[in-house]
Amino acid sequence: MKIGGTAYRSIWREGEDKSVKIIDQTRLPHEFRIVELATLDDAAHAISTMRVRGAPLIGATAAYGFCLGLLEKTDDHAIHEMSRKLIATRPTAVNLRWAVREMQDLLWPMPEEVRLEAAWQKAALIADEDVAINSVIGDHGVPLIRAAFEKKGGKGPVNILTHCNAGWLATVDWGTALSPIYKAHDAGIPVHVWVDETRPRNQGAHLTAWELGKHGVPHTLIVDNAGGHLMQEGLVDLCITGTDRTTASGDVCNKIGTYLKALAAKDNGIPFYVALPGPTIDWEMDQGVGSIPIERRDSHEVDYVRGLDAAGNVGEVRISPEFTSSANYAFDVTPARLVTGLITERGVAPATKEGLKALYSSSVPVFS
Amino acid sequence: MKIGGTAYRSIWREGEDKSVKIIDQTRLPHEFRIVELATLDDAAHAISTMRVRGAPLIGATAAYGFCLGLLEKTDDHAIHEMSRKLIATRPTAVNLRWAVREMQDLLWPMPEEVRLEAAWQKAALIADEDVAINSVIGDHGVPLIRAAFEKKGGKGPVNILTHCNAGWLATVDWGTALSPIYKAHDAGIPVHVWVDETRPRNQGAHLTAWELGKHGVPHTLIVDNAGGHLMQEGLVDLCITGTDRTTASGDVCNKIGTYLKALAAKDNGIPFYVALPGPTIDWEMDQGVGSIPIERRDSHEVDYVRGLDAAGNVGEVRISPEFTSSANYAFDVTPARLVTGLITERGVAPATKEGLKALYSSSVPVFS
Repeated sequence: MKIGGTAYRSIWREGEDKSVKIIDQTRLPHEFRIVELATLDDAAHAISTMRVRGAPLIGATAAYGFCLGLLEKTDDHAIHEMSRKLIATRPTAVNLRWAVREMQDLLWPMPEEVRLEAAWQKAALIADEDVAINSVIGDHGVPLIRAAFEKKGGKGPVNILTHCNAGWLATVDWGTALSPIYKAHDAGIPVHVWVDETRPRNQGAHLTAWELGKHGVPHTLIVDNAGGHLMQEGLVDLCITGTDRTTASGDVCNKIGTYLKALAAKDNGIPFYVALPGPTIDWEMDQGVGSIPIERRDSHEVDYVRGLDAAGNVGEVRISPEFTSSANYAFDVTPARLVTGLITERGVAPATKEGLKALYSSSVPVFS
Repeated sequence: MKIGGTAYRSIWREGEDKSVKIIDQTRLPHEFRIVELATLDDAAHAISTMRVRGAPLIGATAAYGFCLGLLEKTDDHAIHEMSRKLIATRPTAVNLRWAVREMQDLLWPMPEEVRLEAAWQKAALIADEDVAINSVIGDHGVPLIRAAFEKKGGKGPVNILTHCNAGWLATVDWGTALSPIYKAHDAGIPVHVWVDETRPRNQGAHLTAWELGKHGVPHTLIVDNAGGHLMQEGLVDLCITGTDRTTASGDVCNKIGTYLKALAAKDNGIPFYVALPGPTIDWEMDQGVGSIPIERRDSHEVDYVRGLDAAGNVGEVRISPEFTSSANYAFDVTPARLVTGLITERGVAPATKEGLKALYSSSVPVFS
């Protein structure tokens, strides 16, 4: 999407460069810094320090990491070492393992001398496919926003609430939850986004607000406590969030706090949509609550808040007493009964086993 | 309640001192600083800068403010000026206006020479009555906590979730929502409190965690997003919050985000109680949503977070991009249908018009 009128992706290679570029997301929203990744270690470091984050973007970065590693060595042992190093950066990331396996499967059978060029092509393909999937998710979501606009008699913006960051910064481009919003905005439908700050890591305040603002999409930052009141007051027309894992029956595991917004949407008769690419569906799992393991992260994220201090430096402040301990649950599960629909690259499905099956039972690929 | 084993109130006069003392709540939790108020201006400044906050404590501080003013001048014009100055500190605070009226009504008819002594007595009475009311609220709430403990077969602590600060720091002592918790803890019932940090002002992280910890009550800080997940996982036995205004039919206006926790409690079959002194009931109002005016505060509170920086100083960091605007709604309304019961100084009532009427129809005062 655009920054100051110029189109960007979250990771890119310029021409035949022997490196790739990323946006350092740990500096956002206070500093826009492009960083060059020239070695495998650069790529691994960018993932482990969260300069890049978001499942699809981590996968693409790992794929490009192989290319950078192959610039140095192309033998089998080197490929094994690259895989090990990349997977160690975020041990639980599903897309990371998937991308590493894709690269391994491609490279092992090949003669050494063609591996580098094949890797560059495959990494570009992985990135392009992510962009294509997210673009189509956006296309399928636009009619929902248009319908909300027409329901309002074409008056005023469509007010959309989102939680966390499922925007282009979490993917290679477009995003998942934000893709329909960008497409609607670009198509001239007036939209306004309520951005949950999304404690503890504040991805809403740091990333979603930044990328929406840079692309020119009207938005307002709110604390995570505010959404229920806004819905009671008729100030939200629909909700769209992303998801990290969706069960076969439509339960949605997403950033902690998503469940509370889905409850409020239900209580106020407001549509609650979740946008996702097919690969995040866990066909082996039915019931999400109690089954999906919920990551507990370092309590430091709860105790401290990062931001720009009075001197203009990015720093942290501790909000709690030194004797108070905290708990940091990273995700929660929104039961399918609270989800109006799932926006996928194959269309919009009801959040039911039948709904998902109907979309995905055909094995015809959407992209050739 | 206790700090390091010593009993404190949030405002107090030592013997026949010509001043009162408060705890500077803007320094908590990072610094425990007692401040002496020696003049009317000191008292007004303490209220306007939120060194004291919480409706009952503001009322008591205003009452003592009259005493401090009368140390200088005791004529009618001076009393008029004191009233004006105190009310201007927090124009919308109901308890502040009530305390000012109480003092005026007492002082006008009196000869000048007895006004000071009468004011000291009245201010002490206002403070003592607040303590007594809150203590009785606690007594009425303890059986609910004991019942939860017995329901668990006497195993493990009773896990209670609270939002914002309705503890002794918001009143003169005991608090409202936290009063039953202190009483249960002191009575030997094992309790553990989930403390919502309560963005944007973080009263949970700054004040509730501090006062619980100092009194020795086990507690864990969580982000406002986490409560729903904890309830789904069976980690919350009951919720207790305070309220700023309760309608005649039991709708509860409280700190923004309370409604979301009440929805989650309902969805998971967890009791949701609200603790309140009778005077916060608005008998003129039935339906809360859409009727109670919701204060919109400065967006600075959303954009910035206060805490202790790396150098050990209390400072602020900005979390959002400079081009992003934010909205700051201070309260929301929890419909009575989501409230299990109202814990008052007259007992526990169902959150219905009939329930409240039954408790308050008798005019027999609880305290003589």
